[in-house]
Amino acid sequence: NQLNRTKFEKQKAMTLFISLAVALLLVLPTGALSSPASRLDNVVVVGGTHGNEYTGVWCIKALSRKIASNQIREQYPSLNVSTLLGNPEAYLQNKRFIDDDLNRQFLKDSLHGGDDLDEDDLPMETLRAREIDQIIGPKFAGGSGSDEPANSVVIDLHSTTSNMGLTIIVAEGDPVMTRAAAFVRKKCMDSGEEVNCLLHTHPSRAVRPNLSSTGKHGFTIEVGPVPQGVIRHDAVEKTELAIAAMFEYLHLYNSNQSKLDYMLKEMYSVTDSDATNDRSQGVPCYRSAAAIRNGEMSGKIVWPSVTDNPNFPAYMIHKHLQDRDFDVVKTGDALFVDLDGNIIPYDGAFGESIYLMFVNEGGYYYQSSGRGVSVAVKAKYDLETGMLYSPEAQRGEKEEKDSLCAS
Amino acid sequence: NQLNRTKFEKQKAMTLFISLAVALLLVLPTGALSSPASRLDNVVVVGGTHGNEYTGVWCIKALSRKIASNQIREQYPSLNVSTLLGNPEAYLQNKRFIDDDLNRQFLKDSLHGGDDLDEDDLPMETLRAREIDQIIGPKFAGGSGSDEPANSVVIDLHSTTSNMGLTIIVAEGDPVMTRAAAFVRKKCMDSGEEVNCLLHTHPSRAVRPNLSSTGKHGFTIEVGPVPQGVIRHDAVEKTELAIAAMFEYLHLYNSNQSKLDYMLKEMYSVTDSDATNDRSQGVPCYRSAAAIRNGEMSGKIVWPSVTDNPNFPAYMIHKHLQDRDFDVVKTGDALFVDLDGNIIPYDGAFGESIYLMFVNEGGYYYQSSGRGVSVAVKAKYDLETGMLYSPEAQRGEKEEKDSLCAS
Repeated sequence: NQLNRTKFEKQKAMTLFISLAVALLLVLPTGALSSPASRLDNVVVVGGTHGNEYTGVWCIKALSRKIASNQIREQYPSLNVSTLLGNPEAYLQNKRFIDDDLNRQFLKDSLHGGDDLDEDDLPMETLRAREIDQIIGPKFAGGSGSDEPANSVVIDLHSTTSNMGLTIIVAEGDPVMTRAAAFVRKKCMDSGEEVNCLLHTHPSRAVRPNLSSTGKHGFTIEVGPVPQGVIRHDAVEKTELAIAAMFEYLHLYNSNQSKLDYMLKEMYSVTDSDATNDRSQGVPCYRSAAAIRNGEMSGKIVWPSVTDNPNFPAYMIHKHLQDRDFDVVKTGDALFVDLDGNIIPYDGAFGESIYLMFVNEGGYYYQSSGRGVSVAVKAKYDLETGMLYSPEAQRGEKEEKDSLCAS
Repeated sequence: NQLNRTKFEKQKAMTLFISLAVALLLVLPTGALSSPASRLDNVVVVGGTHGNEYTGVWCIKALSRKIASNQIREQYPSLNVSTLLGNPEAYLQNKRFIDDDLNRQFLKDSLHGGDDLDEDDLPMETLRAREIDQIIGPKFAGGSGSDEPANSVVIDLHSTTSNMGLTIIVAEGDPVMTRAAAFVRKKCMDSGEEVNCLLHTHPSRAVRPNLSSTGKHGFTIEVGPVPQGVIRHDAVEKTELAIAAMFEYLHLYNSNQSKLDYMLKEMYSVTDSDATNDRSQGVPCYRSAAAIRNGEMSGKIVWPSVTDNPNFPAYMIHKHLQDRDFDVVKTGDALFVDLDGNIIPYDGAFGESIYLMFVNEGGYYYQSSGRGVSVAVKAKYDLETGMLYSPEAQRGEKEEKDSLCAS
């Protein structure tokens, strides 16, 4: 009896233990068990990094109201979301920037160099970049070498006058973000919005000059066509769709990684129509092309400027190319028109047949932002590693320092 | 014989006289015989009145090359065409204006008032307006009271982010320009471009604040949609089409008025499809609506601004209205969306059923330019007098001082 009773109690205890364990598995964030990854809790959404890109400014204004009313916390309990106006002075003046492109200031030299210079001698945007680095970074570790950025994820909202639709820009080799881009892409496509993924191919986060590199992970949402200094409802809706999908991804990442893994594998299984062509798994994307002629900036076809204004092109985009981002352009196709009406064809500098992107983006009229039209290469990246694996996508040496993708 | 010979010589002389007279009629500018109108010889084409409206800047740069190569003189021998960059400083800064909208500065008070003020206290655009008045005006007669503007015609080139297509803006009651608008409209339509005519209804040239009022006759070309700070080939082509048609009109006016009369009558005969609906002759056009509620600016539906920026709307245009300039909007239709996603419907303030124009024009985000969406009234004007004659088009008292049409 004593033995039976003990045995019975042992069985009871075991049953209880198993029940508790199962309950625990159901209740606990499975991500915490299945993966050693740290949570992505502090998320900052930045608008107005370029002061005249009003779509992002509208979206952070609308989002901050949802944060204040606790709506975001209720919907995504694992996320601590904040917003930031990137360039308040440029926003007030309805300009892309005051002195220099803010989205090119997040390098070590800008953030920490120039100690010999008076602050008054620095471009306004360098000073603002340092403030932002304090708020959402720091990007570079301090003296102790152990500083972590305050924010796990920086979502930077941009718009373009070119017909880029919804484009997600992330860094090659950051699987947390390349998987996010893959997730957001599919979620938006399910809602009827086509999305292009575009990969930064800088060798490391340290050499990416963009604002989104200030947090641990950077995720840029680009939407177009929308004029500078104008709010379009359709562009706002597209951006908000991508933000919502990103929040869903981040919350799943924090709360249920095995479900997230499962969803992503389903999204990009070989039976998926995107992948059936070459029977290889992977996420379709674009990346900047390498320059193939000396003196040309990597991945861009540069136009000349008029003599009285360095930021006013002397060539305009030919009407046949206008609004045709991500379409094929072949050698000999009309590319530009000059002030006398002469047509300047594509000269084949980047290969016989290329893809263009940021076609007639107003921000790229500025030397400071990188003048010209971007040349893109169609590629794919590995869902697990976030590395490009199309042979076409092998990058050249020359372009590494110049391939700036964000508008 | 003597008699016969004399008679014969008289007949010969008469024949010669008639032949000469006929030859003279064929050779001489018939306008000079058939009409007392003075020639429209000095024509200035202005671009960049708003510094970020690059379409016009491109067009005057291209035009000045054609002037320099004598192409314009050869094509239109009676015209002396020049170009002017309206707001060079705003153009260099890629802004609509520096201190104040230049296209609202051409009133007597701005051009000649403020003698007690230091020049440094005046808005940059007031000073620029005075310079322009010296170059292409003067608009107001000096002490002698007999000054004539140096330019017969001012063609002012504008662009808009709204979907206005090609729109010609002229003043009611200036038949030289309303006939020009009618001519250009038909010429462009023959080339497949739809054109809307829009009438300023200010009681006189003196109270029109626009740059185009500085010459004897003003003619504004508006094209959209095109982003601010961007050159679109299609918008350039539309503008150049309208400029060419305008030059053709002006040269015909100077050289062959009876041919011009004949052409215009043919264009707007009652058998014309435009006119058959109501069997009345006349040129279809739009004009600004009168305000019907106290405190509302005439002809515009004004949106509120956000608290941190007077030029950033707190409402955005609802997507159903975007790009729908000159379409009908009815009471209850979605008009705006606020930052919480609430829809603000049209409240019927301007009547049950209205036409909107300049829908989401970026320049109208500025208080200084007249914030909001313009409400239009469909009308017709008399080809001979340039006066509106649709009963619908009778204007109210209140709006006269506020109905600013040019972007």
